[in-house]
Amino acid sequence: MALTVLIAPSGFKESLSVKDVAEAIGRGIRRAAPHATILTAPMVDGGEGTTEALVAATGGRMVSATVTGPVGDPVASFWGILGGDGPRTAVIEMAAAAGLSLVPRDRRDPTLTTSRGVGELILLALDHGAERILVGCGDSGINDGGAGMARALGARLLDGQGRDLPEGGGALQDLARLDVSGLDPRLAGVRIDAAVNWHNMLLGPKGVARVFGPQKGATPEQVELLDRGMIRYAEAILQATGRDVAQMPGAGASGGLGAGLVAFAGATLHPRFDIVLDYLDFDRQLGRADLVITAEGALDGQSPFGKVPCEVARRAEALGIPTVALAGTIGKGARQTYEHGIGAYASIMQRPCSLRKAIGGGAKLLRQAAENTMRMLLVGQRLAQRERA
Amino acid sequence: MALTVLIAPSGFKESLSVKDVAEAIGRGIRRAAPHATILTAPMVDGGEGTTEALVAATGGRMVSATVTGPVGDPVASFWGILGGDGPRTAVIEMAAAAGLSLVPRDRRDPTLTTSRGVGELILLALDHGAERILVGCGDSGINDGGAGMARALGARLLDGQGRDLPEGGGALQDLARLDVSGLDPRLAGVRIDAAVNWHNMLLGPKGVARVFGPQKGATPEQVELLDRGMIRYAEAILQATGRDVAQMPGAGASGGLGAGLVAFAGATLHPRFDIVLDYLDFDRQLGRADLVITAEGALDGQSPFGKVPCEVARRAEALGIPTVALAGTIGKGARQTYEHGIGAYASIMQRPCSLRKAIGGGAKLLRQAAENTMRMLLVGQRLAQRERA
Repeated sequence: MALTVLIAPSGFKESLSVKDVAEAIGRGIRRAAPHATILTAPMVDGGEGTTEALVAATGGRMVSATVTGPVGDPVASFWGILGGDGPRTAVIEMAAAAGLSLVPRDRRDPTLTTSRGVGELILLALDHGAERILVGCGDSGINDGGAGMARALGARLLDGQGRDLPEGGGALQDLARLDVSGLDPRLAGVRIDAAVNWHNMLLGPKGVARVFGPQKGATPEQVELLDRGMIRYAEAILQATGRDVAQMPGAGASGGLGAGLVAFAGATLHPRFDIVLDYLDFDRQLGRADLVITAEGALDGQSPFGKVPCEVARRAEALGIPTVALAGTIGKGARQTYEHGIGAYASIMQRPCSLRKAIGGGAKLLRQAAENTMRMLLVGQRLAQRERA
Repeated sequence: MALTVLIAPSGFKESLSVKDVAEAIGRGIRRAAPHATILTAPMVDGGEGTTEALVAATGGRMVSATVTGPVGDPVASFWGILGGDGPRTAVIEMAAAAGLSLVPRDRRDPTLTTSRGVGELILLALDHGAERILVGCGDSGINDGGAGMARALGARLLDGQGRDLPEGGGALQDLARLDVSGLDPRLAGVRIDAAVNWHNMLLGPKGVARVFGPQKGATPEQVELLDRGMIRYAEAILQATGRDVAQMPGAGASGGLGAGLVAFAGATLHPRFDIVLDYLDFDRQLGRADLVITAEGALDGQSPFGKVPCEVARRAEALGIPTVALAGTIGKGARQTYEHGIGAYASIMQRPCSLRKAIGGGAKLLRQAAENTMRMLLVGQRLAQRERA
């Protein structure tokens, strides 16, 4: 009987996209086991590459679009339509409309950048008739709490004199009132899920402005300004919608876009891998698999705490399916992953080699390691057959 | 049913003795499979460490001895008695009596150094009542063709005037006649096998003086002198014993000791791993094993040509037993080993790492890789069990 292998890796930071990782592993498996059936579940985190990976894994298609970029100029963007026979499903990654990489280095001022393009992508998905939209959060270049998106969807943000606020998180300290009467009525008929980092809070010492503002170019003074704005914003959202985003896990994701998605788009926030696995129909794929191969740049004592390999392995273990992990670095504490569903792991290194060279040759190393691993597993199968005989 | 694993590695050049390699692998296996039965067959090549490894693997004992060293001074030496219930068996490594490491750097003159101590070790083994003696060749510091050994065993080397020649390969150009009438009569009643590099020839452009003389400190003039001496020596051996060592594979091993062993001790020369495997009762050990784990510093396109991993794997494959290989470096062409019995291989590297660091941490890397590998094999066993269910 031919084996069915489910490849469910993370991307390798600074080296390989999750799509490249999955492809390299697939090639290695086929070299050792040409007749294996290969399924792929790229474990994206909502950030850059999420749309492309989910579209590729489900046999869907990418759609090009031009939207308002984070500094107000139009940018070439995209969204995705998933394949498969479930409900009509769109995938949007916020970074494709308001990502940090779309903000020119000399205009990195998060008091001004806007999430408006994200709202425009949502409208495009609604135009398409999407019944379900996944919004991936991560790699953002804004700190406006999703205010720009809210405007694109039809909301108004008003100051004490009833005037519309300018774009950007810096203006939110002057927010007096929200007018949500003009929101696109189609939003009420669609399910919107957001994949967020569950630990990103909106306000306070661990809030989005203080933790992420500096990465996006905010000065210490701007950080305080942004945090004050977020406090006003949360109060106004509570008044206008009855939704309390102040202490909501994930509301601070992507410069507070999480809060805006909940407030204006009626979205539900989810820990990122949970919802990605859901949209990938992961449990159904697991049900077909004999073996899961996962991968991440490093496997170590941190892996059991929310990293891809253990997230995948725990789900597989619950169904009695073994998981093996490949990693560039097998680090301190990696043996702890044995307690979290990882049956075995291997480094992708094939010889002494510098980090720079390893990163440069990552795809080849992964292919070789996947072949080695598959062959090792086949030898293990032979051992079991010897025992039977 | 608990697995029986036969560990049959080589040493790692400049890093780990074969004993250390085997121990590290054993520790790794036990971490993953505490109930596995572990057998060990250290794949020594006849050079330094051969005696200790064979004694350890068979549960034998080491015997200390003082013999004439290569520069004529007494040296602390040793030989070994193998354990087990076969014939009474002694093991001698020539390097323990005439090795290059016993020649002080300022006295590295292979026209003068002698193999006499090797003959003295053979006499000690005969005194002990050995029925079988394995002489390991390799790492020698002499180029006397075994002339010194021959003298210790009772032969005489005479010049044209019937005078005894002085010690060393330089004097052999004056050899007129051999007198073998005084050889120890016990030599006729013992089986002597020599483990040699089958490609070491005695004479000519690829002969021992030209290939190895310079490594032992010979000047170009001395190389010519030594080669002339070897030609005379081979002629005299043919005259006195009827044995033709001139073109005999392995006769040039260890400064021509191979020739002397054949001529004076009645030894049979063997490709080194063949005879080591024989003395280790390797086929019987294989018969008990479910799996073989072998290892060498590097696995590559050269491995099928006489290197330990493929030598071991071919024998295991003939009995239907799978072999996996661990190596510091998986090099170019390693996939060719799949055609020579290797079922799967893995590098011992756990992350990007310099060669220097890898060598320094070799034992730990091997232990970790052996554990990883064993766990991977156990996952493979689970796959087979899933298929059955």
